[in-house]
Amino acid sequence: MDIETYIESLCREAKEASIILRSVSAMQKNNALESIAQGIDTRGDEIIRENGIDCEQGRKAGLSKAFLDRLTLNESRIQDMVTSLKEIAAMEDPIGEIAGLRRPQGFLLEKVRVPIGVVAMIFESRPNVTVDSAALCLKSGNSVVLRGGSDALSSNRALVSIIREGLSRAGLPENSVQLVERSEHTGVSALVRQNRFVDLIIPRGGESLIKRVVDEATVPVIKHFKGVCHLFVDEDCDLLMAKEVVHNAKVQRPATCNALETLLVHEKVASLFLPRIRERLGDVELRGCARTREILTDIGEAHEEDFFTEYLDMRLSVKIVDSLDDAIEHIERYGSSHTDGILSNSIENIERFVSLVDSAVVMVNASTRLSDGGVFGLGAEIGISTDKLHARGPMGLKELTTYKWIVLGNGQVRP
Amino acid sequence: MDIETYIESLCREAKEASIILRSVSAMQKNNALESIAQGIDTRGDEIIRENGIDCEQGRKAGLSKAFLDRLTLNESRIQDMVTSLKEIAAMEDPIGEIAGLRRPQGFLLEKVRVPIGVVAMIFESRPNVTVDSAALCLKSGNSVVLRGGSDALSSNRALVSIIREGLSRAGLPENSVQLVERSEHTGVSALVRQNRFVDLIIPRGGESLIKRVVDEATVPVIKHFKGVCHLFVDEDCDLLMAKEVVHNAKVQRPATCNALETLLVHEKVASLFLPRIRERLGDVELRGCARTREILTDIGEAHEEDFFTEYLDMRLSVKIVDSLDDAIEHIERYGSSHTDGILSNSIENIERFVSLVDSAVVMVNASTRLSDGGVFGLGAEIGISTDKLHARGPMGLKELTTYKWIVLGNGQVRP
Repeated sequence: MDIETYIESLCREAKEASIILRSVSAMQKNNALESIAQGIDTRGDEIIRENGIDCEQGRKAGLSKAFLDRLTLNESRIQDMVTSLKEIAAMEDPIGEIAGLRRPQGFLLEKVRVPIGVVAMIFESRPNVTVDSAALCLKSGNSVVLRGGSDALSSNRALVSIIREGLSRAGLPENSVQLVERSEHTGVSALVRQNRFVDLIIPRGGESLIKRVVDEATVPVIKHFKGVCHLFVDEDCDLLMAKEVVHNAKVQRPATCNALETLLVHEKVASLFLPRIRERLGDVELRGCARTREILTDIGEAHEEDFFTEYLDMRLSVKIVDSLDDAIEHIERYGSSHTDGILSNSIENIERFVSLVDSAVVMVNASTRLSDGGVFGLGAEIGISTDKLHARGPMGLKELTTYKWIVLGNGQVRP
Repeated sequence: MDIETYIESLCREAKEASIILRSVSAMQKNNALESIAQGIDTRGDEIIRENGIDCEQGRKAGLSKAFLDRLTLNESRIQDMVTSLKEIAAMEDPIGEIAGLRRPQGFLLEKVRVPIGVVAMIFESRPNVTVDSAALCLKSGNSVVLRGGSDALSSNRALVSIIREGLSRAGLPENSVQLVERSEHTGVSALVRQNRFVDLIIPRGGESLIKRVVDEATVPVIKHFKGVCHLFVDEDCDLLMAKEVVHNAKVQRPATCNALETLLVHEKVASLFLPRIRERLGDVELRGCARTREILTDIGEAHEEDFFTEYLDMRLSVKIVDSLDDAIEHIERYGSSHTDGILSNSIENIERFVSLVDSAVVMVNASTRLSDGGVFGLGAEIGISTDKLHARGPMGLKELTTYKWIVLGNGQVRP
């Protein structure tokens, strides 16, 4: 079978399953999630064995240590999957919520929350994403087509086979969760053009993958482009607080998308603040603009491309700005509309910053690391959107739904 | 200037203007709308003169009578524009709505409604769309790039020049409303790939235009594909009511997207209902399935392609189905997810239909013609979405907005 036909048939089956999912109860979906959790728990050894094949091949192929670490499953990571499944089962069902009103013509107009239909996830080689994506899509009543990294294929096969058995035991269609088992590069191109059967693509990965998906897709895409997050230290600011917030934003988990990448400092506090933050940041490599390097004379230079870069590492760009508006302009130009913040005591400046900075999340006197579905109370998160349509910022279950309008009449016509 | 550079510069200017629009007040936007209304009112003669050039060229080019009718402006249509502008000015501002809650960590989390940014409208030659789109985008705080049909270019130039003067008088950036004045076909291709500057494309037009936009766009698209609307007459149904609702859905304004295109009739009531509805529909040309033609022996045949077709005309496809589920399957296969309905007295059947039919609007005992922003109470409508993401069904001002998250803290960090 050629790859296009293969992908199309997976997607068609997912669509057929999604029709059945439209009318299943929360209880059925939760039973399936519990059943999947049980399957993963009891068959942990088998999953770890299959994962071992991936890891072995990855080592032979010379994959990086960080990559292999993300790929590797062990007993504790299997238990994390089980916990995550149970947590998702325990969450409130997002489907069926109704807002209604009686219109003057006498009919009842209802706006009802419903599943989107078929979601395709394109992601790299973290097997926990396989389980979380399947669980979140199922809980929100969607079918999902999973296209994970080819380096995790054995692991994903084992996981998806357990997931499909769990669905089957709970009386739900197995094809609600489909795995692309062929790793041809052109499979991604075929997948993102299945607009007859697929309603939404969520790509998770590096910039080049996302660019390719956006370029080729005819299916709507919600993406997380990158997280070049900023904090601006304003002239009137509690510098002790700023020191701790900047430290947390950069150091607490530098490899995440909501970690700080660029620090902007108002020129009036730069000579006071920069030496202090440098000391507090310890091992972090600073790269500064020319004026920053007049104060911190022995740090490296920040070139223009640094300000566009998501380091995901113990490295920070630093720039001195003349004003609030210069900070806002810098963020507009170099930012990624993910999470950006101001550290300030001035209500006027805070308001201006909040209204003009066009990011999914705007922080005021808080660490960028708080930009997270769990911290916001959305529960499990399928991603963080840097897009503006449908979902913005942390995406939970509700963001995997849409709505439809229902008119309940008794013969109303248009006059 | 080549067409790509031209389009890019229009979009960049629109983006710059959108940054200013982020922080303007409702009053400023309403002043601009009033000022535009006044401009169009006082300069109606000039608009009609410029429109005359388009109409004259259209006649020479042999455009259809219906096309010329949609293109033509007269004093009464000018007054409709003025009224529409005043109505939009009088509507509530959708921007700034806040939902907030205090999170356990002590920060205040706010979800704030904000403009999307830059919207590009691609549409055909109805000049009132130019004015309505500009007004709705402005009211919702967005810049707009208008790419109207080349047959209406003189009319659109006159209208947009008045709109930009109104913006300017109200102290708002002229570039909030941009008109693509060059009609190269490749301009559309360039426009739909401006994802650096444009946040949303709304194409309005025929199937081939929409397909092309979806195929080429890197900017997110919300589209109205087509409206192949169905009504299903169930076995237990008030046939008198059904006769009036079907008549209204087909005849009241057949050229609109929410007009009825296919009538599905349960076999148990077919021999009773079909002759009656045929009489009631008078001049409407019926095309029937084989079984329908056993009852209505002298009507034409409905081929499979008829069931996919949006006639937009005094023509109706008719099919007899064996069951509710057959009706649902037909709609799944041939429908366009726009507006579909059931006429029934059975609560069980109504519930099954409503939960399984995956359309933007589902009608129960009501005419498909009620699927409309005005009827639903959304106010002026920028289109009807047959997509599932962001907006579904009638799109009003709220659907031209997005949200952002704001965290108001006092030094919170991630533990």
